[in-house]
This record gives sequence, C-alpha cells and structure tokens, in this order.
Amino acid sequence: LHTALKEGHIRKATHIVSTISDDRGEEPLYLGIPISEVIQQEMSIGDVISLLWFKRKLPRWASKFIEMCLIVAADHGPCVSGAHNTIVTARAGKDLISCLCSGLLTIGPRFGGAIDDAAINFKKALDNGIPPDVFVEDLKRQGRRVEGIGHRIKTAENQDKRVEILCQYAKQHFPAMKYFNYARAVESYTLQKANNLVLNIDGCIGSLLVDLLSSCGCFSEQEVKEILELGALNGLFVLSRSIGLIGHALDQKRMKQPLYRHPADDVLYATE
Amino acid sequence: LHTALKEGHIRKATHIVSTISDDRGEEPLYLGIPISEVIQQEMSIGDVISLLWFKRKLPRWASKFIEMCLIVAADHGPCVSGAHNTIVTARAGKDLISCLCSGLLTIGPRFGGAIDDAAINFKKALDNGIPPDVFVEDLKRQGRRVEGIGHRIKTAENQDKRVEILCQYAKQHFPAMKYFNYARAVESYTLQKANNLVLNIDGCIGSLLVDLLSSCGCFSEQEVKEILELGALNGLFVLSRSIGLIGHALDQKRMKQPLYRHPADDVLYATE
Amino acid sequence: LHTALKEGHIRKATHIVSTISDDRGEEPLYLGIPISEVIQQEMSIGDVISLLWFKRKLPRWASKFIEMCLIVAADHGPCVSGAHNTIVTARAGKDLISCLCSGLLTIGPRFGGAIDDAAINFKKALDNGIPPDVFVEDLKRQGRRVEGIGHRIKTAENQDKRVEILCQYAKQHFPAMKYFNYARAVESYTLQKANNLVLNIDGCIGSLLVDLLSSCGCFSEQEVKEILELGALNGLFVLSRSIGLIGHALDQKRMKQPLYRHPADDVLYATE
Amino acid sequence: LHTALKEGHIRKATHIVSTISDDRGEEPLYLGIPISEVIQQEMSIGDVISLLWFKRKLPRWASKFIEMCLIVAADHGPCVSGAHNTIVTARAGKDLISCLCSGLLTIGPRFGGAIDDAAINFKKALDNGIPPDVFVEDLKRQGRRVEGIGHRIKTAENQDKRVEILCQYAKQHFPAMKYFNYARAVESYTLQKANNLVLNIDGCIGSLLVDLLSSCGCFSEQEVKEILELGALNGLFVLSRSIGLIGHALDQKRMKQPLYRHPADDVLYATE
Ligand SMILES: CC(C)(COP(=O)(O)OP(=O)(O)OC[C@H]1O[C@@H](n2cnc3c(N)ncnc32)[C@H](O)[C@@H]1OP(=O)(O)O)[C@@H](O)C(=O)NCCC(=O)NCCS
Ligand SMILES: CC(C)(COP(=O)(O)OP(=O)(O)OC[C@H]1O[C@@H](n2cnc3c(N)ncnc32)[C@H](O)[C@@H]1OP(=O)(O)O)[C@@H](O)C(=O)NCCC(=O)NCCS
Ligand SMILES: CC(C)(COP(=O)(O)OP(=O)(O)OC[C@H]1O[C@@H](n2cnc3c(N)ncnc32)[C@H](O)[C@@H]1OP(=O)(O)O)[C@@H](O)C(=O)NCCC(=O)NCCS
Ligand SMILES: CC(C)(COP(=O)(O)OP(=O)(O)OC[C@H]1O[C@@H](n2cnc3c(N)ncnc32)[C@H](O)[C@@H]1OP(=O)(O)O)[C@@H](O)C(=O)NCCC(=O)NCCS
Repeated sequence: LHTALKEGHIRKATHIVSTISDDRGEEPLYLGIPISEVIQQEMSIGDVISLLWFKRKLPRWASKFIEMCLIVAADHGPCVSGAHNTIVTARAGKDLISCLCSGLLTIGPRFGGAIDDAAINFKKALDNGIPPDVFVEDLKRQGRRVEGIGHRIKTAENQDKRVEILCQYAKQHFPAMKYFNYARAVESYTLQKANNLVLNIDGCIGSLLVDLLSSCGCFSEQEVKEILELGALNGLFVLSRSIGLIGHALDQKRMKQPLYRHPADDVLYATE
Repeated sequence: LHTALKEGHIRKATHIVSTISDDRGEEPLYLGIPISEVIQQEMSIGDVISLLWFKRKLPRWASKFIEMCLIVAADHGPCVSGAHNTIVTARAGKDLISCLCSGLLTIGPRFGGAIDDAAINFKKALDNGIPPDVFVEDLKRQGRRVEGIGHRIKTAENQDKRVEILCQYAKQHFPAMKYFNYARAVESYTLQKANNLVLNIDGCIGSLLVDLLSSCGCFSEQEVKEILELGALNGLFVLSRSIGLIGHALDQKRMKQPLYRHPADDVLYATE
Repeated sequence: LHTALKEGHIRKATHIVSTISDDRGEEPLYLGIPISEVIQQEMSIGDVISLLWFKRKLPRWASKFIEMCLIVAADHGPCVSGAHNTIVTARAGKDLISCLCSGLLTIGPRFGGAIDDAAINFKKALDNGIPPDVFVEDLKRQGRRVEGIGHRIKTAENQDKRVEILCQYAKQHFPAMKYFNYARAVESYTLQKANNLVLNIDGCIGSLLVDLLSSCGCFSEQEVKEILELGALNGLFVLSRSIGLIGHALDQKRMKQPLYRHPADDVLYATE
Repeated sequence: LHTALKEGHIRKATHIVSTISDDRGEEPLYLGIPISEVIQQEMSIGDVISLLWFKRKLPRWASKFIEMCLIVAADHGPCVSGAHNTIVTARAGKDLISCLCSGLLTIGPRFGGAIDDAAINFKKALDNGIPPDVFVEDLKRQGRRVEGIGHRIKTAENQDKRVEILCQYAKQHFPAMKYFNYARAVESYTLQKANNLVLNIDGCIGSLLVDLLSSCGCFSEQEVKEILELGALNGLFVLSRSIGLIGHALDQKRMKQPLYRHPADDVLYATE
C-alpha cells in the first residue's frame, strides 16, 4: 500500500482497506471470483468460508470437513450458556438478532472457545518436540488446564460420538494427522490421571484443523500460525452455533413462551 | 441543511450530520456548552442527560427527578432477565462489555420497556379527553393490556415504595401532575377488576415524565410527542439499569463463579 | 403440555420448554435424529437448518436452495452498514464475537431485513387475489414502499446476477413458482414507473422461499404463515452474512489496521 | 458458603449466588439499604454506583468525583468508534438498545479502555518504587506504549481541559494524590521525548481513581487491587459514554437520517 501510494498509483490514502470481497462491479466478487462462477463451479458453503476467511480455495476434502464441523457443532441443547441466554431474550419478546447476539456474547474461554487455544497449544508442543507427558506437566506447573482435554460425562470407555465421526472422516481423507495423533497421545497420558480426561470435541476439532491447514498444501507454516492467532477457528464454532441459537429463538417464539424470571429460591442472596 | 447547501455556505454534503456534541475545539462542547462550564456551573448528571438527549437545560427540580429515576431503577435483583443474562455471561468468563450487552439486549416490551408506551398511551388518552374506564375497555376490546398497570405481588393495600417515593417528590416540586393523576384514575378503575392491577413503577415513571416534559416550560407540545416517540424515556431505564448490570457482572467475577449450565431437569424436552 | 401436566405424566412444571434438540443422551439429537445419523445420511447444512428451524427434513432440492441463498448473500463488500461496523470494531482491537455482534445489530428494516416482509406481502396479496397494480397502488396510498422492489444501480436492462442465478435454479427444481411469478408481475408494473424499480435480491429470495415452503409438501398453509411471521427467513440472511462479517473482522486483524476515527470534515456539526 | 452448607444453614446448593442487591422484600435493597432510605439520605448516583460496584458507601467527596468522571466522559463527538457505530445502527432503523450495544462493543484497548490499565501500571510502578524513567524505558523495551500517556493534538503548552478540571477538584478534596503525582512525573519524562506525550484523560482518571480508592479509608490494599483487576474503572467509562451513545442514537432518529453506506471511493479494495 505504502509503495503504491508513493509510486502514485493511488491518489490519496483511503480510510479503509479491505481485501476479501468487492461489491463495485456487476456482481459481488468473493476473493476475485464472481458469485455466478462460485455457483457454476458448485462451490459449497465450506468453499465460500475458505475464500472469505482463509483467502484460499481449499481442496474438496478440506472444505467438506469444515462443513462437517459446522454440522456437528450446530447445537448442543438448551442448557448451555449461549442457548440459555438466547432463550431468555426470546422470552423477553425481543427480535431475532437481539436473541442471537445475547447468546453469542457468552462464547469464550469456558464455552465454545477452546478450539483455537487447543490448536495453538498442541501445534506449538509438537513443533517444538515436547513429549506429551512433559507438555501436560508443564501446564500443570503453571496452574493451567489442558485445553481440549476433559469432559463432564464422557470417559475412556464412553467416547463422544462427534469425536469418532470427525476422526473417522480424517482417517479416510486427510494426508496427515500428526497433530491429532499428538492430541491422542496427550489424552493417553491424561487418562492415566483420571478416566474423564478424554480428548473432547474442542480438542478434536482444533487438532484436526491444524492437520488440515498444514497438510492441504495451500498455506505456508507462517500462514497457518497466523490463522490460528487471528482466532479464525473460533469463528467456525461461532458460525455453526448460530444455527442452533437462531433455532432456539424461533422455537421459543413459536411456543409463545412468557417472560423468564429466574426462580428466587435458586439464588443465594449472600448480602450480609 | 438543504438551504445552507443551496446558499453555498457548505461546500459539499457531508455523509454524517450530528447536533448534540462537538469535539473539534479546545474541549468538547455539550450542546454548545464547554465541559469546563458544565462543571463550573455545577451541572449534574441529569443536566448532562437533558443537554445530550433532550437538547435543553432543564430546571433543577426536573433534572433532579431524572436522577431519582436513575437511582430507583438502577437494580432489581439477580432474577430478572437482564441481570440473569449478564450473570450467565460473566460466569462464561467474558469481558465486562459483553456481559453488559448480553443483559441489555433483553430489555424490551416485557422487561423494562413499558415506560414509553405507558407515557404515550396515558398522554393520548387524556389529551383526547377519553375517560379512564373507556380507555381501559378500549384496550381490552383490542386484546391489549394497559401498559404501566399490573404487578405480580403488589396490591392496593401493599403499594410499591418506589412509586410512593417518586409521587411524593412530584407533589412537592412539579408544577402539574395531570398525566400522573390520570394514570391514578386508570388505576382506580382497574383495581375494581383485580386487586393487583395497581399503577406499577413503569406507569408511574412514564406518566410523571410526561408531566415533567409538559410542564417544565422547555418544550412545545410537538416536542414532547417527539421525545416520547423517539423512545427517549426507555433510554433512562437502559442507562439506569446499566449500573445494576455492571454491578452484577463485577459481583460474579469477584466471586469467581464457574460456568453456568441450566439444570437439565428444569427443562421439558418436548421433542416428540 | 398442560394436558400432560394434568394427566400426571410430568411431576412439576419445568421453567423451560424446548423442542428442537436434546443433549441428554449419548450424543446430541437434532429433532430426534442422532448426529451420527445426520452425518451417515450425508445431510447437508441446509438439512440441519431445516431440522432446527423449520422442524422438518426437506427434500434435497429445497435444502440445496437454502444453501444457495447462504452462498449468494454471504457478503456484499465492506461498505454496507453491517460490514462497516464490524470493521470499525475490529480496528478498535476487540474480539471476534464483539466485531460480529456490532455488525449484526445493524441488520433490520433498511439493511438485510426486507426478505420476510417481502415474502409476507407478496403471499398475502396473491392469496387474496389482489392484482399487481392494485397491490402497488394500495401500498403507495399508505405511503409505504414495496418491500423487495427497487435498487440503487440495477435496472431492467442490467439485472442483478444473483436474482438470475436463484431464478434459474428454481425453474429447474421447484414444483411451483407462483409467488415468484407474482413478484415478477409486480416488477413489470413498477418498472413502468421507474427503470430501477426492479425485483431486488431480497424480493427474489423472499418470494422464492414462499414458493419453496408452499410447494415442498412438508408444511400446511398455516405452518408456512407461522414461519414467515416468526422471522425465520430473516434468520437465513443473518446466518449467511455472518460468514462475511467474520471474514471482514479477520481481514482487518490480519492487516493490523489501526483505530478508525471518522474524518471530522465529513461531519456537519449542526449544533446551532 | 461451603461452611454454611455443611453446617446445615442452607438446605441445598443454589445454582446462583448474588451479593449486591435483593429484590425479595417490600422494596429492593442496594447492599442491604432499602431504596427509600437511599432516597431519604439523599444519596447520589455516585453513591449508588459505589454501593453496587464497590460494596461500600464512600465519603461524599469521593462519590462526587465519580460523578464528575461520568460527566466529563459522557461524550466526545460523533467521530469516535463508539459514537460512529451507534450512528450507523440508528440510521439502519434499529431500536435504541441495538444502537447502544453496537457502539458499546467497540470500547476496549484502543478506545475508552485505557483507564484500568493505566491505573494498574502506575500503581504497580509506584508501589514497587520504580522511578518514572525506568518505568517508561522498561515498557519501551517490551515494545509497549505507556497507557494513559499521549494525545493526537494536545501538547505540554496546550493542556486537555478535562484533565485540568479533575486535577483541580482532586487538589481541593483528595487526602492524597501520590499516584496522580507519579503519573505527572512519568509525563515529565515522556514530554522530553515528544511534545504530545502528555498525561491524557484516561491516565488522569485512572491515576486519580487509584488515589481515591487508596486514600478514602474504605478499602484494604488488597481490595483496591481487586477492584482494578475486575475492570471496574472501565465500567465507569462504559456507563458514562452510554449517555453520549444514547444521545447520538436519539439525535439520528430525530433527524430521520437515511441508511449509511460508506463511500466506496474511501475504500482501497486490495484484492489482488
Ligand atoms: C471440560 C471441563 C470443564 C470438564 O470439567 P469437569 O468434568 O467438571 O472437571 P472438574 O472441573 O470437576 O475437574 C476434575 C479434575 O480434573 C482436572 N481436570 C479437568 N480438566 C482438566 C484438564 N483439561 N487438564 C488438566 N486437568 C483437568 C481438574 O483439575 C480436577 O482435578 P482436581 O480435583 O485435582 O482439582 C474441563 O475438563 C476443562 O476445563 N477442560 C479444558 C477446557 C476445554 O477443553 N473445554 C472444552 C469443553 S468441550
Ligand atoms: C406486570 C404484569 C406482567 C404482571 O402480570 P401478572 O401479575 O403475572 O398477571 P397475569 O399475567 O397473571 O394476569 C392476571 C390477570 O390480570 C389481567 N391483567 C394483568 N395486567 C393487566 C393489564 N396491565 N391490563 C389489563 N389486564 C391485566 C390479565 O389479563 C389476567 O386476567 P385473566 O386472568 O382474565 O386473563 C402485567 O400486569 C402486565 O403485563 N402489565 C402491563 C405491562 C407493564 O406495565 N409492565 C411493566 C412491569 S413493571
Ligand atoms: C432499495 C432501495 C432503498 C433503493 O432506493 P434508491 O434507489 O436510493 O431509491 P430512492 O430512495 O432514491 O427512490 C427513488 C424513487 O423511487 C421510489 N421507490 C424506490 N423504491 C421503491 C419501492 N420499493 N416501492 C415504491 N417506490 C419506490 C421512491 O419513492 C422515489 O420516488 P420519488 O422520487 O417520487 O420520491 C429502495 O428501492 C427501497 O427502499 N426498497 C424497498 C426495501 C427493499 O426491498 N430493500 C431491500 C434492498 S436489497
Ligand atoms: C493516544 C495515542 C493513540 C495517540 O497517538 P498519536 O498521537 O497518533 O501518536 P502516534 O501513534 O502517531 O505516535 C507518535 C510517536 O509517539 C510514540 N508514542 C505515542 N504514544 C506513546 C505512549 N503512550 N508511550 C510511548 N510512546 C508513545 C509512538 O511510539 C510514536 O513514536 P515513533 O514515531 O518513534 O514510533 C497514543 O499516544 C497511545 O496509544 N497512548 C496509549 C494509550 C492511551 O492512553 N489511550 C488513551 C487515549 S485517551
């Protein structure tokens, strides 16, 4: 940009720079590709996400995996923070977008936001040749939990079906699974500590997406790191769970549920 | 603006027009008044709100009443929709603004948003000389509730203290209370129907603010109507309750409360 | 529910009722279908949306159309309200979800929210046998614009490619297109008034979705009406455009763009 | 809580714990004080904030200072990120709360969120006896800017009036100003580097609030630290600026401003 300015190709600096889509011509372009071509080439939603978020056209097996992630994470019942806040807002009679945003704003470190951190941690550990046990004990020493490990109910004997589904697909289609295998090795070690310290869905998606980005041949090492640090994987969960949140809002409106008021006898008023 | 453009006072149309504050000079101006003067004149928060929302410097008794409204509506416990969603978001480990917005987004027709409608309805009815009983029955015929009337617990014998407080102040300081008195007359009629159809806090604030705006000598009839239609009174509740919502977020963070998950046994899964 | 309570099937009323998904068992169920089956049956994102929003498994041609809508509406450049606010928030250094929500909150009557209204209006008009010219003139008399009609740039000679794409697909796969054809008839009439009063993308998506819902054999007349009134079609735009908004947030973060401050010389300070 | 549970004072653990307000009785209690008493004692908005956020009744000079902060930070014109996004949302025809939240979500490290960090940094530096020059050079070595220092326009010769106003009040009423004085000493050092590296409004409010909390006699050393880490000072800016944001939303609605679309010629489409 600065060079272009200096060389006089641009008259004056604009206040906004944008690189992913262009609405000035006959039809919108996604990363330079006209929408009519996107449709003609039968690109999928996974392809469009790749164009707009990762600035690449990914191979079919990769964008198909992105779509599988969108499907398995679309909803997880009405009890989780996001769905709950969306339900409460819907019952307060608010519009769809207010309901959605009230729920989305709960997504973070403790709910739905462990994917990026799991990905970053597993990647750094494996790239630096740190053995699984050292990795786990290092985090423990820092008083941190292993992101992507642990589940309330699931155990070694009672696997999360969603993890199985994604792992199955990767085995059939991914060129490499070294980060996922590393995550599994971490799980083997943590399972010795407690039966429920399994690789959870966030850890599974996170490690497999690092494998996907690293082995699809579209990104340099540096670009993979950048994508993880931007928080783009978190974006996948956010988009996916939006399907469920909108569903919950419509569900409450359909049933004309009244204003929710949390039962006072479920609150400890610790005022003294 | 158009005239100014035509007369050549403005070179070209700007994309944004703004009238309430100006940040270009030595110090920000609120409606043309430099902040240092705002402070020197010992203006209060109620005064600043009047300048920025209503574009007027109100008499002291009026801005003091606005501050009383901010105080009595600042919080109403952890069980209401807004506080509840803020609490859930705080427990998901999110930043203060996400917690606040998640709660604010629940404010609307069923929670905290009856002030404007109560004000508009009572004003229209009294201005058009509609007797209280006709007013109530008209709404009933349309299948609508009387905004500003009704309470879960309060009854004719057991008044809401906050209504008493505001009414007391108005009696001592307002030049006129005709809209509040009309609201009281509506209450007299609805109380014949059921003991809990009292004038509630929203109806009280709404009707008194119409009295304030109409009798303070700062607004034309038309301007009062415009303020109500803009939803400015709703703004007072939003600002006031933000104090409570921020309080609840800080409260949960201080206690390091864990991720909230709604108990599954409190949900009816009506999936079949 | 009430009957179930009376008949003693449920011990006590729960505070929350939910019908679309169930997280209590081995794996989440979407409308009663286990996720592993969703994947095994190679259901698409359009299918999952139908299950969670419309409570139906739609025929393949229908869920494919939903996916096409998600693709063509995913982004429309950085200048529109939603993308702009997301960009400003990203440049303020905020997290992905804050950026997304700041943009989503602009979606409404003037930006992205004309789909539902266009659908409702065209449907009501055709169902009641109102001729296109009467329909347009009726709205004009009420001082309202025809939702789904009109474009800044596009004209009769210079069609919106996205409208062509969706129309093309519908012609090949939809059992019926009577609402779309009605919308086209309305367009023929408005084009006599001005060259740019074409059927726009919102009107196209809206009318085609009514055709889809009405002719797919999955919904009663009453259920179609309910879906439109719930604002579910608006949900499709919201979900779709979330792809673009997340893309814009990642784009700004990738380029490390500094804090945006709107140029003061583009503001008319109309303070006097 | 755990002790209470064990000792049998509480039947079963509630799902929510709350300590700041109580809505169960005749009238809401703020930190145990009935609202009617809050009003009778002529408590101010600053007092109510102290009760609900800091769990203390502060001396009058302290809550008055809090109110002054609310007043001087209430607005800073239409060009800053928050006001701008609120304006864009208002012009998209959205409700007041959507406008407010869209703006609030921009508040963070680069806009309005430097108060807490400035407070924490100045406090830590002075408490640990680090001389101003070492403090500045340490941050520089880490590639970090000094929070609370620097301004686009203001210089040593041309002070920010708002800083003067607050400083003036503190000199007259605060028992101690050691953190503010430390901030001033930092400014003296940075001013040798560049003429515009003055103590800005965030640094001023941040350091003075540390002085207030530390010298008012209501908090232990540990409690002051906790308040800063909770991000409570940020809350003051958020609440204060909400006045301005609501003002801007009402302003745009009053003027019936049309949908904003950012001018395409102000965007660099760097798509290749
Ligand atoms: C998912 C999770 C919240 C489940 O928690 P839970 O079953 O309620 O577990 P608890 O919090 O009761 O912890 C039980 C014990 O296991 C330990 N533990 C749990 N998760 C752990 C992890 N990821 N790493 C290390 N130790 C862990 C706890 O420290 C605790 O040990 P202690 O009793 O000695 O203190 C938890 O495993 C976790 O925080 N995981 C990391 C974040 C993550 O991946 N989230 C994605 C969820 S899909
Ligand atoms: C505040 C409110 C929700 C309390 O509701 P509630 O005590 O749970 O009352 P219910 O909904 O159980 O209604 C009980 C009966 O009173 C009637 N009723 C309640 N509020 C009424 C009102 N404002 N106008 C007319 N009738 C009303 C109901 O229609 C119902 O009659 P029915 O049994 O013949 O159907 C309700 O009074 C209301 O909606 N008021 C209007 C909105 C408002 O002012 N909100 C501000 C709250 S601070
Ligand atoms: C999309 C839209 C904003 C484009 O507006 P625009 O090209 O800037 O048009 P203008 O607002 O300048 O209007 C030009 C004239 O056409 C008329 N017009 C524009 N859209 C109209 C509509 N949908 N129905 C009837 N008349 C319309 C205007 O009233 C105006 O007539 P006038 O000069 O006699 O007052 C506008 O057509 C519209 O509001 N459409 C309805 C909402 C909609 O479908 N939005 C979806 C957008 S994808
Ligand atoms: C407020 C602020 C954004 C103003 O920035 P600006 O006037 O546009 O200054 P620039 O970003 O152009 O910086 C000019 C030079 O001063 C330096 N500088 C600016 N603020 C600095 C600070 N707080 N600490 C150290 N150096 C600073 C810059 O590094 C730069 O030096 P360089 O040219 O050698 O790289 C900036 O001073 C800042 O980030 N301050 C810290 C955050 C803060 O207090 N924000 C509250 C704003 S009210």
